[in-house]
Amino acid sequence: MTTLIDPALTAVNGPREGAFGNATHLVCRACGAEGPLGPFYACMECFGPLEVGYAFPEITREQIEAGPRSIWRYAPLLPVPADIATFRSTDPGFTRLVDAGNLAADLGLKRLWVKDDSGNPTHSFKDRVVAVALSAARELGLKVLACPSTGNLANAVAAAAARAGIRSVVLVPENLEKQKILASAVYDTTLIAIEGTYDDVNKLASEIAGEEEGWAFVNVNVRPYYAEGSKTLAYEIAEQLGWRLPDQIVIPVASGSQLTKIDKGIGELIKLGLVEDKPVKIFGAQATGCSPIAQAYRAGQDVVAPVKPNTIAKSLAIGNPADGPYVLDVVRRTGGLIADVDDTVVVENIQRLARTEGIFAETAGGVTIGVTAKLIADGVLDPEAETVVINSGDGLKTLDAVADKVGPKTTIAPSYEAFAEFWKGRRP
Amino acid sequence: MTTLIDPALTAVNGPREGAFGNATHLVCRACGAEGPLGPFYACMECFGPLEVGYAFPEITREQIEAGPRSIWRYAPLLPVPADIATFRSTDPGFTRLVDAGNLAADLGLKRLWVKDDSGNPTHSFKDRVVAVALSAARELGLKVLACPSTGNLANAVAAAAARAGIRSVVLVPENLEKQKILASAVYDTTLIAIEGTYDDVNKLASEIAGEEEGWAFVNVNVRPYYAEGSKTLAYEIAEQLGWRLPDQIVIPVASGSQLTKIDKGIGELIKLGLVEDKPVKIFGAQATGCSPIAQAYRAGQDVVAPVKPNTIAKSLAIGNPADGPYVLDVVRRTGGLIADVDDTVVVENIQRLARTEGIFAETAGGVTIGVTAKLIADGVLDPEAETVVINSGDGLKTLDAVADKVGPKTTIAPSYEAFAEFWKGRRP
Repeated sequence: MTTLIDPALTAVNGPREGAFGNATHLVCRACGAEGPLGPFYACMECFGPLEVGYAFPEITREQIEAGPRSIWRYAPLLPVPADIATFRSTDPGFTRLVDAGNLAADLGLKRLWVKDDSGNPTHSFKDRVVAVALSAARELGLKVLACPSTGNLANAVAAAAARAGIRSVVLVPENLEKQKILASAVYDTTLIAIEGTYDDVNKLASEIAGEEEGWAFVNVNVRPYYAEGSKTLAYEIAEQLGWRLPDQIVIPVASGSQLTKIDKGIGELIKLGLVEDKPVKIFGAQATGCSPIAQAYRAGQDVVAPVKPNTIAKSLAIGNPADGPYVLDVVRRTGGLIADVDDTVVVENIQRLARTEGIFAETAGGVTIGVTAKLIADGVLDPEAETVVINSGDGLKTLDAVADKVGPKTTIAPSYEAFAEFWKGRRP
Repeated sequence: MTTLIDPALTAVNGPREGAFGNATHLVCRACGAEGPLGPFYACMECFGPLEVGYAFPEITREQIEAGPRSIWRYAPLLPVPADIATFRSTDPGFTRLVDAGNLAADLGLKRLWVKDDSGNPTHSFKDRVVAVALSAARELGLKVLACPSTGNLANAVAAAAARAGIRSVVLVPENLEKQKILASAVYDTTLIAIEGTYDDVNKLASEIAGEEEGWAFVNVNVRPYYAEGSKTLAYEIAEQLGWRLPDQIVIPVASGSQLTKIDKGIGELIKLGLVEDKPVKIFGAQATGCSPIAQAYRAGQDVVAPVKPNTIAKSLAIGNPADGPYVLDVVRRTGGLIADVDDTVVVENIQRLARTEGIFAETAGGVTIGVTAKLIADGVLDPEAETVVINSGDGLKTLDAVADKVGPKTTIAPSYEAFAEFWKGRRP
């Protein structure tokens, strides 16, 4: 084992025994170097991104099913202590897996489920990753939970920190929509508006993470733990299908972390014998206005060239996605691919999901349904195969996207006669 | 048994066997007259409101625990068929019961839970009642699901109808905030804006219900079924506490239906032996700007004089609450009471709940927490007793309430120096 971290760094006030459950080490995704668990995110050998490695004991379905109705039922599969459920968190996860028969019929699919993460405490999948990052921060003795964000992540960090009784700092671009600011500031987080773009905010976050002691920037210095939270989407899908895997999954892609971790989670389930081994094709979905990985896929490249985002799907608008190459690996290995749709299609598919299943998704959901429809039309997705799509967030947070598209069918005087005139010919 | 409905009305195309599960009849809450199940809501003897009566078989905890993770686990206790879970609905309920230690400490309570209904599919408790109304509409062969509404109810009806594949019509006042219109219209409901106030809209709804055939106005002609949905709040609280009852519950009051049905649900749990019998004090919470029942309580009256609502808590702004007298009955019988707080306190308590527990409530939640705090200060609520408060909706729907109260703590240049200057003296 190559040691990539100076052990002296963790020797003093190291984390308690069992702080990270069955996790045993960090491993570089680029060069494979290994090192101890700690607040590290870049390999000292090659600067590659680190991820969490485990030594799993036997884990049974019964053991999981007896757990809490949240991601903590999968605690043995996460870098969290066995007593995680005794700490105050927002207890996200175990959201609905909606058997989406209407949408399936509309799309021409035989069997389709929507994993609806708008049911999380702050209504996006970010509650999952933040909950795991919060645990890591606590176990590492860090005192401030922080993030750069333009929306969902800020909501999740501010809420989780409030619940846990830990300080939080949220950095946002000063021109962020007031609604998004309110929905984080209400938790009494230290919300700091930055005179600059999201890129400026991100850069400043890394600087602060380097300069200040005791900070856990969830998506920077505790990112290896944070990212593991997305594996729970795979676990829940499998459990909610009756401990089996679907044939194909369509996943929204921003940094790409969610997609790669769902793939990792599937691999773990198979390895542990919790589900039967079978191939699962993984598909990625981006908005055309920010589709660097889809472009690289189409060009047959292994590297992802950064782009300047220009899309209404703000929660997916990461122009330089950290997990880009790993996303390409996963979709190629599993027989999937990554594609994109433009903003008009995004809005149409927000409406499609709402109209057919009564689920109001944020723009990212419109991207995922839109790409699903496109892949069916292109003959790429198998219409006979069991399909799952991820809805990662809530339409109440991106109301502007549909503002010009939906509204009253009519405006009438408050009389039955006026109503009857309108309803004439529309009677069922 | 007095027959209050002409049996000829239900003889043709009557509902199928078992359409309403263990429900057996409708009963007048005013005079006690009984009649058959059907689309009826007012007693033909005395015009009193009807409610659903049951003949329950033995129902066990194990039976319920084996059911789905939604209100349908309580199907044997609701006027729905045994196969209800096979129909497409939004499957609401089984929301988080948050052990609210931080808020308890802040309020000076020993043990407090928040029943957080913002986790429902359209983020309010209305999904519960609409799901039961939808079932009744289907079983009665009604073809249009409809409501007058100013927000949460419209969202819930439009989403549930979309999912079920049934037409919906939602009537709203034309001056309703655009955000609220969007959040219903996105489901492709027939949203009709009415030139008038909410009272005008309500009146028109009753007129249409009387004139048109095949309509289920959820809160008008299928109201007896609709209202039963609120009982599930009591069932879930008891089950989530480990099949036992709390000592006191604080409940937001609009029409008063939620409060009276929670009380009814508690009575059923005790009668069926699902929980140990014990007294539960029921407290009601209103906004001062629409507090007709609290005023009647204070005046020692049995009748509730209508008021003209003037409060930011729009989802509680019913000036002439249908269940007013029954609310007075319940709080007096159980040793509770009903009180109110003004809009300033409402906003402070939205912030209090967000700051302490990471839960962002709509204005109704601010009312409930505010009244809870007031009752503690007044020595009315027992601080040693186990307390549950209901959060019935989501802060994302009433962002305006906090718009002038929360925001960035500072705005700085995108440099570490600017940050360090701000952070100086704030280090943990």
